[in-house]
Amino acid sequence: MNKGVESIERMVDTLSSLPTIGKKSARRLTYFILNKDKEFATKFAETLVSLVNNVNLCQKCFNFTDDDICKICSSEKRKKNKLCVVEGPSDVSYIEDTNEFSGLYHVLHGVINPMNGINPDDLKIRELISRLGGVDEVIIALNPNVESDITAQYLANMIKPLGIKITKLASGIPLGTSIEYSDSATLSRALEGRVVIE
Amino acid sequence: MNKGVESIERMVDTLSSLPTIGKKSARRLTYFILNKDKEFATKFAETLVSLVNNVNLCQKCFNFTDDDICKICSSEKRKKNKLCVVEGPSDVSYIEDTNEFSGLYHVLHGVINPMNGINPDDLKIRELISRLGGVDEVIIALNPNVESDITAQYLANMIKPLGIKITKLASGIPLGTSIEYSDSATLSRALEGRVVIE
Repeated sequence: MNKGVESIERMVDTLSSLPTIGKKSARRLTYFILNKDKEFATKFAETLVSLVNNVNLCQKCFNFTDDDICKICSSEKRKKNKLCVVEGPSDVSYIEDTNEFSGLYHVLHGVINPMNGINPDDLKIRELISRLGGVDEVIIALNPNVESDITAQYLANMIKPLGIKITKLASGIPLGTSIEYSDSATLSRALEGRVVIE
Repeated sequence: MNKGVESIERMVDTLSSLPTIGKKSARRLTYFILNKDKEFATKFAETLVSLVNNVNLCQKCFNFTDDDICKICSSEKRKKNKLCVVEGPSDVSYIEDTNEFSGLYHVLHGVINPMNGINPDDLKIRELISRLGGVDEVIIALNPNVESDITAQYLANMIKPLGIKITKLASGIPLGTSIEYSDSATLSRALEGRVVIE
């Protein structure tokens, strides 16, 4: 640390409170900002303030937006009959990156986790059920773990009786890796979900 | 990207303009900030503004400080007869971390690099020479590269005639690595600078 320079210490502490940024990186970033012109830091600060003040949740899908309704929900090009259910807003952006999905999203803002006191009522599940009119497939795109499996099953139990198809993302060996480096749980999922070569 | 959410896009762009932060990390950090309470971003912004507004250069050593004279220069505990010359303010903090040096510093704010148009007059060299009264050793702690070697030689030519001892950091094999993984330039420096085992 640059001993006693309080503004520098405060910046390093703030930056290193962010995920994946350690003390050493935080210090390097702080010096980087100091070596830039003042305008850089001023704009950075403005961007931060406008981020938390302008971004709110879409009233339909609960993804982040700076309008009342997000660009995806209000787009005429998106198919209204397919709904992809995700845990958080960041998941929307990762799925959008694939350019594979042209339906709508619904962000749950968490998964059911009774151990941590997160019950179905804490999530946007009621809001999901209320917007299923006209939907013929709900795709559950949650992370492959126990809490998400419980959540998926809970949703399936509610949605299936409505006569709507409910699917989930395939689990298996990620592209670019090999069987050798897959853990056995992943491998057994990949076996379970094996597909016919046609 | 969360398409169309301009405040998010701007934050991602700003964060990914920082060194070692790619688009994907920037996005993760942006979502992290959004998931925190508003106060976190507001404080972050204030820290940034106060960083660039409060931090300036020490009038003696040209290290960053939020006073006129930095804590090191104004400390009574530091030895005034040893001066360690570094390229940038961050180098001061790295050397301070070692707890090995109890003298004063002088920050050059760069090294001589005629290719990039950086001449001795662009650095704090005149200021260095003017504060050598009472100094009996100048330690050149510059990075091991050609420009720094040129700068070190330039400084030596100016300082030696004043009867002041001038030293530089030892080059060699870093601790924790092995000869096998050292490049030959480092290895030849280590040979050159070999020390007697007593």
